[in-house]
Amino acid sequence: MILSALLTSVGINLALCFLFFTLYSILRKQPGNINVYAPRLVAEEKAQQRGRFNLESLLPTVSWVKKAWQPSEDELLSIVGFDAVVFMRILTFSLKVFSVAGVLGVFILLPINFVGTQLNEDSVDLQNKSLDSFSISNVNDGSNRLWIHFCAAYVFTGVVCYLLYYEYNYISSKRIAYFYSSRPQPHQFTILVRAIPIPSGSTCSETVESFFIENHPSTYLSHSVVRRTSKLQGLISDAEKLYRRLAQLKLKNHTSQRFGRDGFLGIFGHKVDLLDHYEKKLEDVEHNVRLEQASLAGKEVSAAFVSFKSQLGAAVALHIQQGINPTEWITERAPEPHDVHWPFFSSSYLKRWICTLLVFAACAALTILFLIPVVIVQSLTNLEQLETWFPFLEGILSLTVVSQVITGYLPSLILSTFLSFVPPIMIIFSSMQGYISHSQIEKSACIKVLWFTIWNIFFANVLSGTALYQVSVFLEPQKIPSVLAEAVPAQASFFIAYVVTSGWTSLSSSELFRSIPLLCNFFKRVFSGKDDDEFEVPSIPYHRDIPKIIFFGLLGITYFFLSPLILPFLLVYYCMGYIIYRNQLLNVYAPKYEAGGRFWPIVHDSTIFSLVLMHIIAIGIFGLKKLPLASSLIIPLPILTLLFHEYCQKRFLPIFKAYPNECLVKKDKEDLNDPTITEFYEKLAIAYKDPALSMQYPRSTDGHNSPLLHSA
Amino acid sequence: MILSALLTSVGINLALCFLFFTLYSILRKQPGNINVYAPRLVAEEKAQQRGRFNLESLLPTVSWVKKAWQPSEDELLSIVGFDAVVFMRILTFSLKVFSVAGVLGVFILLPINFVGTQLNEDSVDLQNKSLDSFSISNVNDGSNRLWIHFCAAYVFTGVVCYLLYYEYNYISSKRIAYFYSSRPQPHQFTILVRAIPIPSGSTCSETVESFFIENHPSTYLSHSVVRRTSKLQGLISDAEKLYRRLAQLKLKNHTSQRFGRDGFLGIFGHKVDLLDHYEKKLEDVEHNVRLEQASLAGKEVSAAFVSFKSQLGAAVALHIQQGINPTEWITERAPEPHDVHWPFFSSSYLKRWICTLLVFAACAALTILFLIPVVIVQSLTNLEQLETWFPFLEGILSLTVVSQVITGYLPSLILSTFLSFVPPIMIIFSSMQGYISHSQIEKSACIKVLWFTIWNIFFANVLSGTALYQVSVFLEPQKIPSVLAEAVPAQASFFIAYVVTSGWTSLSSSELFRSIPLLCNFFKRVFSGKDDDEFEVPSIPYHRDIPKIIFFGLLGITYFFLSPLILPFLLVYYCMGYIIYRNQLLNVYAPKYEAGGRFWPIVHDSTIFSLVLMHIIAIGIFGLKKLPLASSLIIPLPILTLLFHEYCQKRFLPIFKAYPNECLVKKDKEDLNDPTITEFYEKLAIAYKDPALSMQYPRSTDGHNSPLLHSA
Repeated sequence: MILSALLTSVGINLALCFLFFTLYSILRKQPGNINVYAPRLVAEEKAQQRGRFNLESLLPTVSWVKKAWQPSEDELLSIVGFDAVVFMRILTFSLKVFSVAGVLGVFILLPINFVGTQLNEDSVDLQNKSLDSFSISNVNDGSNRLWIHFCAAYVFTGVVCYLLYYEYNYISSKRIAYFYSSRPQPHQFTILVRAIPIPSGSTCSETVESFFIENHPSTYLSHSVVRRTSKLQGLISDAEKLYRRLAQLKLKNHTSQRFGRDGFLGIFGHKVDLLDHYEKKLEDVEHNVRLEQASLAGKEVSAAFVSFKSQLGAAVALHIQQGINPTEWITERAPEPHDVHWPFFSSSYLKRWICTLLVFAACAALTILFLIPVVIVQSLTNLEQLETWFPFLEGILSLTVVSQVITGYLPSLILSTFLSFVPPIMIIFSSMQGYISHSQIEKSACIKVLWFTIWNIFFANVLSGTALYQVSVFLEPQKIPSVLAEAVPAQASFFIAYVVTSGWTSLSSSELFRSIPLLCNFFKRVFSGKDDDEFEVPSIPYHRDIPKIIFFGLLGITYFFLSPLILPFLLVYYCMGYIIYRNQLLNVYAPKYEAGGRFWPIVHDSTIFSLVLMHIIAIGIFGLKKLPLASSLIIPLPILTLLFHEYCQKRFLPIFKAYPNECLVKKDKEDLNDPTITEFYEKLAIAYKDPALSMQYPRSTDGHNSPLLHSA
Repeated sequence: MILSALLTSVGINLALCFLFFTLYSILRKQPGNINVYAPRLVAEEKAQQRGRFNLESLLPTVSWVKKAWQPSEDELLSIVGFDAVVFMRILTFSLKVFSVAGVLGVFILLPINFVGTQLNEDSVDLQNKSLDSFSISNVNDGSNRLWIHFCAAYVFTGVVCYLLYYEYNYISSKRIAYFYSSRPQPHQFTILVRAIPIPSGSTCSETVESFFIENHPSTYLSHSVVRRTSKLQGLISDAEKLYRRLAQLKLKNHTSQRFGRDGFLGIFGHKVDLLDHYEKKLEDVEHNVRLEQASLAGKEVSAAFVSFKSQLGAAVALHIQQGINPTEWITERAPEPHDVHWPFFSSSYLKRWICTLLVFAACAALTILFLIPVVIVQSLTNLEQLETWFPFLEGILSLTVVSQVITGYLPSLILSTFLSFVPPIMIIFSSMQGYISHSQIEKSACIKVLWFTIWNIFFANVLSGTALYQVSVFLEPQKIPSVLAEAVPAQASFFIAYVVTSGWTSLSSSELFRSIPLLCNFFKRVFSGKDDDEFEVPSIPYHRDIPKIIFFGLLGITYFFLSPLILPFLLVYYCMGYIIYRNQLLNVYAPKYEAGGRFWPIVHDSTIFSLVLMHIIAIGIFGLKKLPLASSLIIPLPILTLLFHEYCQKRFLPIFKAYPNECLVKKDKEDLNDPTITEFYEKLAIAYKDPALSMQYPRSTDGHNSPLLHSA
């Protein structure tokens, strides 16, 4: 790619960004869009309803940037929760890393690359210069200037490791502090027990009760047995919908609207009194609910939530093998009550294991299927190949603008479109693996999406660029450095375009501007003609955004000394991300459940991976550049990095897995002195009862709230 | 090797075995040898001193076999402890496996192999037939008879897995039962804490005390800080020796003997009154001891034994991370007080890690050095090669007897001699790894010796037999089955000879006859002229014997369908082993410390390894024998075996790692009802105090016991 193609791409995306920023700053002030741009504030009833219309609201302003900038970290913590703070720290960490990298890269490495003569470019015209002349490929073979790159690799690794350590330390101490400051919560006192061996003639409930009274006499509090309620929950949500429709009909009071057809979409079928019709239907459903509830009381799964009087009590039951047979009485940390989610829950180990294998196979299949868009994208960047495949395109492709759009903008647009389907698919895969909570599913999906992205975007593009998909290289480990060293620098321009398209534009269009929710909201208002006040406050999709941020980090780290031109673009991305995500966290997203900062170790691990990948490429590059001494002197660097990683794993990871005894004892003492603790115990005893089982009848359709929501 | 060479080897070894059996049955009745053949009974004062001499004692008898046979397993458990019972179960397990294998192999597979015509042997004379005609190599290529071998592999694997499961289940339930029946012991109530962060201005003892009172208020009992006492212990043992010599001198009362020279070995130097000389020396040493004790009181290591009031309390402290910083307050199960041994103890994680790396390197070096005897051995089995190397030997080697001895007997004798040096070396390596007790060191050495044996005896011999040391095959995984299938059957005769030499003969000569202790005892009696009543009862060297038993199992399993001729020899070995080890456990060895049957998982793992190795060879063999269908149909077998292994790991292994909550609670309740529990707590509080630190002075040399042994 030549410089002007890159500039075209940057120009298009910059224009798009400005467009979305402007539109956002106008549309956010329109009252009709408040559910799109400030659902969190609406839910907290903080958003002021503005007057119907004034001219000022049509002028773009930047006041939101200031508002998003202002809150300190502690304020953020109290407003958006710990996970969001950790998320913001990922961005500030990346900003720090790439500020250092940017200074080193742009002011030291870039000039060195540029004055090299290895590529012997004929064109002296800057605009037509290939982007390769800014990369390490342009430095002359065997030149001593490469030692500067060598030093840069060492210095940069040192800086990144220092920042990683600092951040891990900071976040883990914050995690402990957050734990101390939190009010007692049910999930801290509860564990999930599965594979309960029920003796014949006894129920699950009795078995659990007697086992824990026997073995945890001083700390056992209560338990609730798990039941399969998916069918019941379906019925209840049907009843909810019917009830809501009934309430709406009653409010309208127009008899004209009370008649409709009972068939498909209200268009076909007999004309009936809708009020009667829905009431009859509702009665049917409610009858079924009662029947199902009665039958479910017996349908116990051999699993139960067991609550304890102290957090230490729960930790003891969690960490020490309970039964003599280790495949029975398997304990697991309980998720928050509203976080529980197990469409694929099974108390059998074997079933879960098979599911994991199936999910693994499905991921592999998805990876292979994803090769199709990758191949398309790569054929677009190699225009000559495209011309030989489709000769009739020759005429169009010879136009400069068209070819620049095609090589500069289209490929990464296609890739990022396809990539946007991956996170929801991975969520489905992860939920099939038998995790018991939304947050665990999200974390597992996050890891899946991350590796999928690294493999399918980085490796597939890099390796298909030279010769289509040289997977076989991974079977001959000694060849990896040289193959990567040859292939990676060649894709620098593609990845710069990728950062601009998939980073800048998609950040402003989908994250800030929220184009899809905006459109949905618009159509809802136009077609249903009502201001539906039942809307859900979204939670931030960590499994979509964290892998993206990490992946840009990987690009930055690996290209840091190969092609430093990428660094300014990344810095702009992270700056935009910092402001936009802060704004969205404050206005749009509400935390649904707390994972206690458990996403940080993923970031740490993948940063280490990026560093080691950079080192491996460096070994190859110095070999190619005929500087074998530098090539061998780089070897200690990955070893030291991995040792550092090993140390961090030992030093910090356990804190993210479980709270230590010291903390639990201290917290338990504080809790015991809390005057509300007995009240809390009462709440705890019913926290994990399935709400579906405790709905009460007879219902009353007069109140504004659904009676189905009154729990016993 | 031809049949007659094998018979020579068997003949020699059989004769040796009979010789040793006869000698044993005579010598054990001689009163002078009672310390060699019944040290355990002597220590328990159960051995009757027989009359000086009678003719009957010179006649060989077999009464000892009957005595060794009689005790039931429960009697054995009460006499020799749980580890020894598990050891005996390894032998009975092997007996069961090879009874089945023997029936299948000798009555079904052997005749099939023998009637094959693949090898086209010219000689019809049975004596000169090569042993290969009894192996699978002799079955015709592509013959349908190979399907019988195929079925045998499936049936045998099924039987072994069933027996493995049965045994694991039996031993783990016995382990729990043994735990329930045991009296409370200090190590069950104690943990070792290392990396204690000592704030400045505080001592280790204070820090530990305040930490555990704070965090384990209801269960904490006491602690003792670890001190470096190796120098002190050296001084004390010097003092002990001097004291003993003094006591002997005083008892003798002969003034003539009281004078000696003070130089080297009492031969050179001035003539002095030995009594005065030793007393002066003893005073010096004791003075040093007191000085060292005083200085040590301050020399604390940041590690301590912490005891709890209940076993559950200790388990909680063990399993839950204690401090906020996971690299501090590291907990570990405490060994029995007299099992503590840490020449290389370090509270630093890093140091321990480096030591492990060094030990790994040392093991690798030892493996490479061990190639020398292996090459010698292999050159002996290939006589032709030896003749080309040393042409002058041609004359001697042409003698039938010489060549038969050389090919049949010498190689395995050399190997087993060299191999006998390995266990002590591995003990040194393991102790360098920083384990804190003899039993852990022994277990680790056992694993090291096992893999060393498998690699250096099995693989080195097998692979050097065809082309010297084809290690490179392990870099191309797809070639492993065919290389092994070609090489393994060729070494059948060598391993049969190895079983006979290293199994039968060394079992009877070194285990039963105890040649080395016998010689030592003899020389002691002859030269020092005294019946030294201070002798140590030996403990069974599990790290030497278990790998040997397992290795023979590996040979049997891999050769089961390749060359079933090995099976009868193995059966004889296990029968002999059963009787001899029972005899020795009852008469010779005393258990020093209890590992709770922790050796069984090693046996289980290596049996699974042997099975999978057999399957891999089978895949190769059926391929070589032009039966590709059988070759592919074998593939599910290793997969099923590994799944079975996975299940067993999950089902039984946790029981061997820690006792479950259920057991601990039950045991704690029983203990609390025990009237002697307060007495036990008092004992517990001082159990881990270093005896070297609590020696009391002034000494008195009048009593029969050393005053140094009186502890405070």
